[in-house]
Amino acid sequence: MTDTPHILRSAKLFDKSNAELAERFTVDVVTEDRAETDRLLDRVGPFIRGFAVRKTIIDKAMIDRLPALEIISSYSAGTENIDTAYAREKGILVANTSHILAGEVANLALAQILSLTRNLVNADKFVRDGNWPTETFPLTRSLKGMKIGIVGFGHIGSEIAKRLDAMGARPAYTGPNRKPVDYPFYQNPLDLARATQMLVVTCPLTPETRGMIDAEVMAAIGSDGYLVNVARGPIVDERALIALLAQNGLAGAALDVFEDEPNVPAELIADRRVILTPHMASGTNETREFMGDAMVDALIEKLGAAPVPRSS
Amino acid sequence: MTDTPHILRSAKLFDKSNAELAERFTVDVVTEDRAETDRLLDRVGPFIRGFAVRKTIIDKAMIDRLPALEIISSYSAGTENIDTAYAREKGILVANTSHILAGEVANLALAQILSLTRNLVNADKFVRDGNWPTETFPLTRSLKGMKIGIVGFGHIGSEIAKRLDAMGARPAYTGPNRKPVDYPFYQNPLDLARATQMLVVTCPLTPETRGMIDAEVMAAIGSDGYLVNVARGPIVDERALIALLAQNGLAGAALDVFEDEPNVPAELIADRRVILTPHMASGTNETREFMGDAMVDALIEKLGAAPVPRSS
Repeated sequence: MTDTPHILRSAKLFDKSNAELAERFTVDVVTEDRAETDRLLDRVGPFIRGFAVRKTIIDKAMIDRLPALEIISSYSAGTENIDTAYAREKGILVANTSHILAGEVANLALAQILSLTRNLVNADKFVRDGNWPTETFPLTRSLKGMKIGIVGFGHIGSEIAKRLDAMGARPAYTGPNRKPVDYPFYQNPLDLARATQMLVVTCPLTPETRGMIDAEVMAAIGSDGYLVNVARGPIVDERALIALLAQNGLAGAALDVFEDEPNVPAELIADRRVILTPHMASGTNETREFMGDAMVDALIEKLGAAPVPRSS
Repeated sequence: MTDTPHILRSAKLFDKSNAELAERFTVDVVTEDRAETDRLLDRVGPFIRGFAVRKTIIDKAMIDRLPALEIISSYSAGTENIDTAYAREKGILVANTSHILAGEVANLALAQILSLTRNLVNADKFVRDGNWPTETFPLTRSLKGMKIGIVGFGHIGSEIAKRLDAMGARPAYTGPNRKPVDYPFYQNPLDLARATQMLVVTCPLTPETRGMIDAEVMAAIGSDGYLVNVARGPIVDERALIALLAQNGLAGAALDVFEDEPNVPAELIADRRVILTPHMASGTNETREFMGDAMVDALIEKLGAAPVPRSS
């Protein structure tokens, strides 16, 4: 082994980040091939001090094979692929990028919220289909004064609230803890749904949040209300959403994430009250580059390697 | 004649507004039939003190036939159908609703700006067409740090700037006058286009602004830039825009207004880099009702009639 810290990285990172890591660390690449990963860990597991990860599953068994691990640095905002509780127990730092991509995800959430209430996707189709000369496009819904419930009030939730404020809407929220903000707090998603006309899901996927937005919660939003999900698909009960839409129990939904990506249920694809985007909330060139930089920089800082000069 | 003030109203207003006017004024209705209008003005012109208008053309000749006119109250934000200079000369108040609908138009502008930079309409089509399992949707553009030029900085322009601020973009503006705001001011649209990556047109249509966003201005935005128009179609040279897009001189455009509404050029309809909406920027149920109320209330206030109790 050399003097440079030894790390693992998952195969699916940017070339730029890979190069930055290679200059500073001894790097081995983890692929999706489980047997290959086993052989790799047999060989280098005891020396690994950092892990640059995207979607690789880092469970208890994996962590136990990395006794020198100090940091798991995730390119992603979500850490549902990582046993964070066990990592914490072992004193391993888990760094993610939710602080980096929060503004971008919030902007996509606003694109969805505005397009949903103003019926933008269908308006564009109306003009392209040549209907404007002969038909009147229906009036839409105003965000002004609309009470909107944000589920999860971390980096992303609070960025969404700030934008809704500027639009004249009235944000409220729920989460495990009340935050030092002026927005109304509700104890749980059901109470929040009852009090608002739209739910915007932004919380992490955990055993507690899986299926949390269920039939009862969604029905409580009301038949003139909306659901937006920019978090993780399995937080929302997709079959219950489809059933509710079928009985006109909701005015519409905008979904960036799904239970079984990249597969989207046919009922949602057929429903023009729903806006569907391919898990792209953080997907701008600029932000993806910042996320890669942040993942690299967290490893560098923790393991004491030479900083990369960044332009901003 | 009775004691109640005598007014004219155009035929195309809400029933609610018509009823409120009928309770307070002696009302005659102006239709699009020019001969019928002539006969009406012969009979009641000299007594008319107010005019509730939407798109009716109120030119010098019309104003000269209404010697007792005190107020023209427009349901619309634009007053290009009214000879406002001549009205001012005659001491006639021209009231419009741009202060009422500013937030709503700004929200539609943001829906277009966000959908344009994040490619939302095409993302929805990508998922609906079933491409997600086999293709990668391209990364999009971040608004963060993007310098965006607002053409016209009245009620609507300043509401758009406030929202862009909350999104992390950097607004700048041009207009006839520098305003007491912190945003950078440019002398004309060309200088603004050179300094920014997107132009958002919000100014009124006047003889000066007709065709103001011409080939040179649009080319100056740059091939990775965008044009958004939520003002009036003829402010933008539509043929020049089409020519510029044909040579990839612009990354995309979002248009709520067109030169010859409801007709939209086939080149724009065929172009997926363009978002097209049917002149709906103020088109929410809530705001259209507020606009009707504001139009009625302006007449009531000026002519001293009994106020309508409003819930908010």
